[in-house]
Amino acid sequence: MIPASLVLNAGSSSLKFQVFERGEAVEPGEGGAPRRLYRGLFEGLGGAAHMIVRDESGAVVADELFAADGFGHEEALRHVAAWLRDHRSGHRLAAVGHRVVHGGTNYAAPVRIDDAVLAALERLVPLAPLHQPHNLAPIRIVRRLFPDLPQVACFDTAFHRAQPEVAQLFALPAEVADRGVRRYGFHGLSYAFIAGQLSAHAPALAAGRVVAAHLGSGASLCALARGRSIATTMGFSALDGLPMGTRCGSLDPGVVFYLLREMRLDADEAERLLYTRSGLLGVSGLSNDMRTLRARAAEDRRARTAIDLFVYRIGRELGSLVAALGGIDGLVFTGGIGENDPATRAEVLRGAAWAGFRLDEAANAAGGPRITAGSGPQAYVIPTDEEAMIARGMGEVLDDPRRTAP
Amino acid sequence: MIPASLVLNAGSSSLKFQVFERGEAVEPGEGGAPRRLYRGLFEGLGGAAHMIVRDESGAVVADELFAADGFGHEEALRHVAAWLRDHRSGHRLAAVGHRVVHGGTNYAAPVRIDDAVLAALERLVPLAPLHQPHNLAPIRIVRRLFPDLPQVACFDTAFHRAQPEVAQLFALPAEVADRGVRRYGFHGLSYAFIAGQLSAHAPALAAGRVVAAHLGSGASLCALARGRSIATTMGFSALDGLPMGTRCGSLDPGVVFYLLREMRLDADEAERLLYTRSGLLGVSGLSNDMRTLRARAAEDRRARTAIDLFVYRIGRELGSLVAALGGIDGLVFTGGIGENDPATRAEVLRGAAWAGFRLDEAANAAGGPRITAGSGPQAYVIPTDEEAMIARGMGEVLDDPRRTAP
Repeated sequence: MIPASLVLNAGSSSLKFQVFERGEAVEPGEGGAPRRLYRGLFEGLGGAAHMIVRDESGAVVADELFAADGFGHEEALRHVAAWLRDHRSGHRLAAVGHRVVHGGTNYAAPVRIDDAVLAALERLVPLAPLHQPHNLAPIRIVRRLFPDLPQVACFDTAFHRAQPEVAQLFALPAEVADRGVRRYGFHGLSYAFIAGQLSAHAPALAAGRVVAAHLGSGASLCALARGRSIATTMGFSALDGLPMGTRCGSLDPGVVFYLLREMRLDADEAERLLYTRSGLLGVSGLSNDMRTLRARAAEDRRARTAIDLFVYRIGRELGSLVAALGGIDGLVFTGGIGENDPATRAEVLRGAAWAGFRLDEAANAAGGPRITAGSGPQAYVIPTDEEAMIARGMGEVLDDPRRTAP
Repeated sequence: MIPASLVLNAGSSSLKFQVFERGEAVEPGEGGAPRRLYRGLFEGLGGAAHMIVRDESGAVVADELFAADGFGHEEALRHVAAWLRDHRSGHRLAAVGHRVVHGGTNYAAPVRIDDAVLAALERLVPLAPLHQPHNLAPIRIVRRLFPDLPQVACFDTAFHRAQPEVAQLFALPAEVADRGVRRYGFHGLSYAFIAGQLSAHAPALAAGRVVAAHLGSGASLCALARGRSIATTMGFSALDGLPMGTRCGSLDPGVVFYLLREMRLDADEAERLLYTRSGLLGVSGLSNDMRTLRARAAEDRRARTAIDLFVYRIGRELGSLVAALGGIDGLVFTGGIGENDPATRAEVLRGAAWAGFRLDEAANAAGGPRITAGSGPQAYVIPTDEEAMIARGMGEVLDDPRRTAP
């Protein structure tokens, strides 16, 4: 049986998983990644669940319904382990890696999970109350079900931890800042992957000043100086920065007080409004999906406004990051919208003509990778792969004898 | 008796006033301003109050203590009117102009106050609960004391009302946005004055792309395209954008929920923390005064960090506004820090080398007006004068027969 790594990304009622082969010769550092075997998704966990698994080619290799109520994350993890064992691929589960949204100030790299690490990650729940608990639950389940299986946590915040202090600070008193209220930034696994791809395929650009735009249902920008994050648009929570599918992005804190006082929302209601009913959905009143908005923008003024606001805010935040970098050599689009919506890329690049970008219409329509012309800064489309980054991080932790022992 | 205009800027326990001569030949539009006679300040209103008045030359012409408790805004206004009448200057009160922080979406210019206007301004109190009531109280007092005296309101928001829609929108659902939750921007009287000065003294720059930096105990930046505001860093409240003396500036809305839940503050306490204990004071733990921080920065790490954060955030927001403008031709420093702290100006300009600014050290040390060298974008120091802008606005409203009748 060939050992396999299971990479998990858990939500409240969903569980994304991918399976990678372990034990291959993997290039250390950037570029190399283990071979991916399967991509799977459970939805509807806790009720009537559904699992779909695709192999490397995208072909569906499992599609199962679990009609009984109460098929939760634990049942899903048991099922994946059994499926992997019984499946004729000949792989057995050898390690589990987790996407964990918050690593706080301490974790600037993947870490093997033990009691102390798990306790430390629990203490970060107040920093990401809507996400961290869902990320930690499967860690506990795996420890119970498979106590001998090594587990590794990879963090969305880790890549940003070496930013200059001024990029991480809010202008708050020490009594608040010292509790960990600072700009953490997220999408770090995505940005680390992009930095690795640049290093492997565009070393000159990788050595320069690059803004990476992770534009999906969550969205942020990251300023990379020689491959390192020096600033990013997301702040303390996953609300800040760019407007997103359903999240507000940058918001005057005074608006929160208005929601509480004048609209008489309580904190939970106000937070839910900003997380789930704002962003593209809120402005358009129509959809959180850029494809729907694009299809309707010609006749629907609010759909057009939602798109215009999204593009405008990307432009403003891009300028802010150009200032942080002291200039710009390249811009990378990634994420669902970044990889698949040439219209958004074109609008962003036309708005960034001031920085020297010159859109190559044909290359952009074709999906790149390079979508600019001329001798100024260049823009690229590079698909991201956060799970590959987790698999790579697992290898770094588990194959390094200094880091294997928890 | 020569008619005089009284310009008021009222706070909770203070009343700034200035007196301008009316009836002079004043250039319409930019550049011209009525002659200033006095600058006065009441402090400690409601308790034991103190009034000081200086004439044009800066000489103190009145310095009075009102030992009795209960000397409030009404008593102060009575006293100014009597003082002006009795004073040997030979001026009588002929009109009153008010700085009003919030004009909402309707007021894009000064307006003569009548019942309907006052009612409309009352309805804006929820948008600026900490400032608007103090601005409106003296309007009501003057109506009662001097019912025949024409009054004019000039707004800190008005100058920004013609910004593109995307610059004013938050990514919030219509149910919130339609209540008036948008980016209003403030310091508009200051920016209008700066735009007028540029038009009068640097017409080529006035026709271009300029960022004006109003850096005082309140601080913001404004992007001026051909003299019109197209974007600004302040948002819905006076909290957003740059860190200020005691205010936080841009803050992830998630931080507010953290203050409410984890630190168990109520909304009023959280708001007070962000307005009065954050910014330079909060980060330094020492002072909200840039002069104190500069004096201590060499030996006090937190004072240095507060300054560094202030300068860094100016740089980031400058980049964001350069993107909004599509490039930059000039930068204007104004406000207490902008006019008087060459070190802040130098640090900002060094950080903006990417945009082509080249600091002229000697000119900067001398206070300008031009403080850059070379053929790139130019930076200037231009003292602001919000009261002159109000006096000018009063003239525009009261001398225009179409606008005189309320």
